[in-house]
Amino acid sequence: MNRVYNFSAGPSVLPEEVLKTAQSEMLCYGTSGMSVMEMSHRSKDYEAIINGAEELLREIMNIPSNYKVLFLQGGASLQFSAIPLNLMTKYKKAQFINTGMWSKKAISEAKRYGTVDVVASSEDKNFSYVPKVKEFAKDIDYVYICSNNTIYGTRFNYVPETGDVPLVSDMSSCILSERIDVSKYGLIFAGAQKNMGPAGLTVVIVREDLIGYEAENTPTIMKYSIQAENGSMYNTPPTYAIYICKLVLEWVKAKGGLEAMEKINKEKAKILYDFLDSSKLFRSTTAVEDRSLMNVPFVTGNEELDKAFISEATKAGFVNLKGHRSVGGMRASIYNAMPIEGVTKLVEFMADFEKRNLK
Amino acid sequence: MNRVYNFSAGPSVLPEEVLKTAQSEMLCYGTSGMSVMEMSHRSKDYEAIINGAEELLREIMNIPSNYKVLFLQGGASLQFSAIPLNLMTKYKKAQFINTGMWSKKAISEAKRYGTVDVVASSEDKNFSYVPKVKEFAKDIDYVYICSNNTIYGTRFNYVPETGDVPLVSDMSSCILSERIDVSKYGLIFAGAQKNMGPAGLTVVIVREDLIGYEAENTPTIMKYSIQAENGSMYNTPPTYAIYICKLVLEWVKAKGGLEAMEKINKEKAKILYDFLDSSKLFRSTTAVEDRSLMNVPFVTGNEELDKAFISEATKAGFVNLKGHRSVGGMRASIYNAMPIEGVTKLVEFMADFEKRNLK
Repeated sequence: MNRVYNFSAGPSVLPEEVLKTAQSEMLCYGTSGMSVMEMSHRSKDYEAIINGAEELLREIMNIPSNYKVLFLQGGASLQFSAIPLNLMTKYKKAQFINTGMWSKKAISEAKRYGTVDVVASSEDKNFSYVPKVKEFAKDIDYVYICSNNTIYGTRFNYVPETGDVPLVSDMSSCILSERIDVSKYGLIFAGAQKNMGPAGLTVVIVREDLIGYEAENTPTIMKYSIQAENGSMYNTPPTYAIYICKLVLEWVKAKGGLEAMEKINKEKAKILYDFLDSSKLFRSTTAVEDRSLMNVPFVTGNEELDKAFISEATKAGFVNLKGHRSVGGMRASIYNAMPIEGVTKLVEFMADFEKRNLK
Repeated sequence: MNRVYNFSAGPSVLPEEVLKTAQSEMLCYGTSGMSVMEMSHRSKDYEAIINGAEELLREIMNIPSNYKVLFLQGGASLQFSAIPLNLMTKYKKAQFINTGMWSKKAISEAKRYGTVDVVASSEDKNFSYVPKVKEFAKDIDYVYICSNNTIYGTRFNYVPETGDVPLVSDMSSCILSERIDVSKYGLIFAGAQKNMGPAGLTVVIVREDLIGYEAENTPTIMKYSIQAENGSMYNTPPTYAIYICKLVLEWVKAKGGLEAMEKINKEKAKILYDFLDSSKLFRSTTAVEDRSLMNVPFVTGNEELDKAFISEATKAGFVNLKGHRSVGGMRASIYNAMPIEGVTKLVEFMADFEKRNLK
């Protein structure tokens, strides 16, 4: 068995320690005599798992007690509908900062349920930067951002000051990557399949006072109030995905929590960006001050050369480096579980490729 | 490691062979160099998995080519909303047969989107039987049934003749347990966590001509048209749950398909019901002709004795036998993955308990 360096944007690499634990517990978890996959979600063993996952997330992210943590299904895409259905009901209006495809999808879905005001967009430069917005309306239900855009490799380097208006953020591709102040947000959500676990689990962290004002026709299962009242057990939750998420959280904690994650992620990103900035063949496609710590798109400027690079890299064990079709070129996603050696070895490989291809 | 006999109603026992394969592939699937959990859903390796799962399901269930197979998230509870939002849009009316809690939840959700006519109910006898309904309206969008009620242990022993009106069935707890004629249904759906795999995956089998008439405010991700056009990849699907589902389908096929499943399930159920019918201590709570092959509730008639039985059974390695609170007593769920020895040994244990407790 040779494990590769997997730079997939998501689903993506998981800590090897987590996979090994899951492997050893596959047929029998503890003394339960069964796999976690086979457990009733109402059993004591399983309740300890889901409650443990919530406690760990609260501890690691320092989530204030007036926030609910929900373990849901449906991905960020379901939240694109759930957020307006749950929150856009007083003023029926929200403001959005458009930083690319994931914000666009959220915008187009929210428009079906209320008035959407896009206060700023970086579409003029193919979403290669993050607009700085300092003023927001007061008569709106929320301000919406995507803190890290997986496709374009941009990251909000500031938290928009929205005053009394709740700030909503899609943190699918950056949650757990660095310290954040949860109290500055009304709602944070994330598909788990990047930094938290397998696809099929979505975590929503929502301030309690925002819950309970759903639009009339909201499907019951999408109501935060219902999910909060039932401790994410209104129906059967994605039990195994939550178990893997708990293992990932245990790994994050053992590694030193978000302070340690942030430190190593900044180191990893610096190695890659420093190389890109000094390279004569490769270059980064994002504005320096808005560069993501998690997703690093880069190009050679020559499509044939990009293809050759991706193909040779794959053979050398650096996989899933193809960029998203809307940016082209390459993208290295270097989530928490990507070890620093993966990045240093990739940079060595890139330097060698450069030497061989620059005449 | 001692595996128990797990009679959980869901999530529930999986074939040990499936768990062993998943265990051996946990860190590296084939030559991919990664876990299935870490794979991009757009990768060739993963596409082979999801397409393989669909092909196997089509083959095993003999699904006609004019039906779409969708791998979704959100459980049956999300379908309770999705079905009226997708299908209840022409006449804005549907007829339901109420056979207990799961139909009731579907009814209460459908009422929020149109007119619901409950044509028959077995509530008069605590849902211990299935009403026989021979006539349905014509000016309705669909007729809705729950083919097997997990809680009360009832099973439709007939397929309602609805003429041109599509028949919709919740088969969460009986899918893959016996042969069915898919062409008699407009839509079949099932939460995977009983006979198909882990919680977090919902399979929808829907006739193509019923797709594309969604109500205006349907969340995009809940539109069958969108999911069908995108091959269940409108957003990231629950990739690992689909992989386990594929392993389960391979197991079903290797065992001889649904003909073999039906034969062994009928044998298993007969062993248990025959014992209950001859016992002087235990009795079945369901009408003989409507008895489920999958979920077998039973009682002693004495709550203290029920408790003692559950406690002793657990110690002896027969777990999750507690009945649902609305029926009380015990319930043995004997899904496909429960080996026949699990049932014969349970009956031996029950006979011994009876001997010790009947004076």
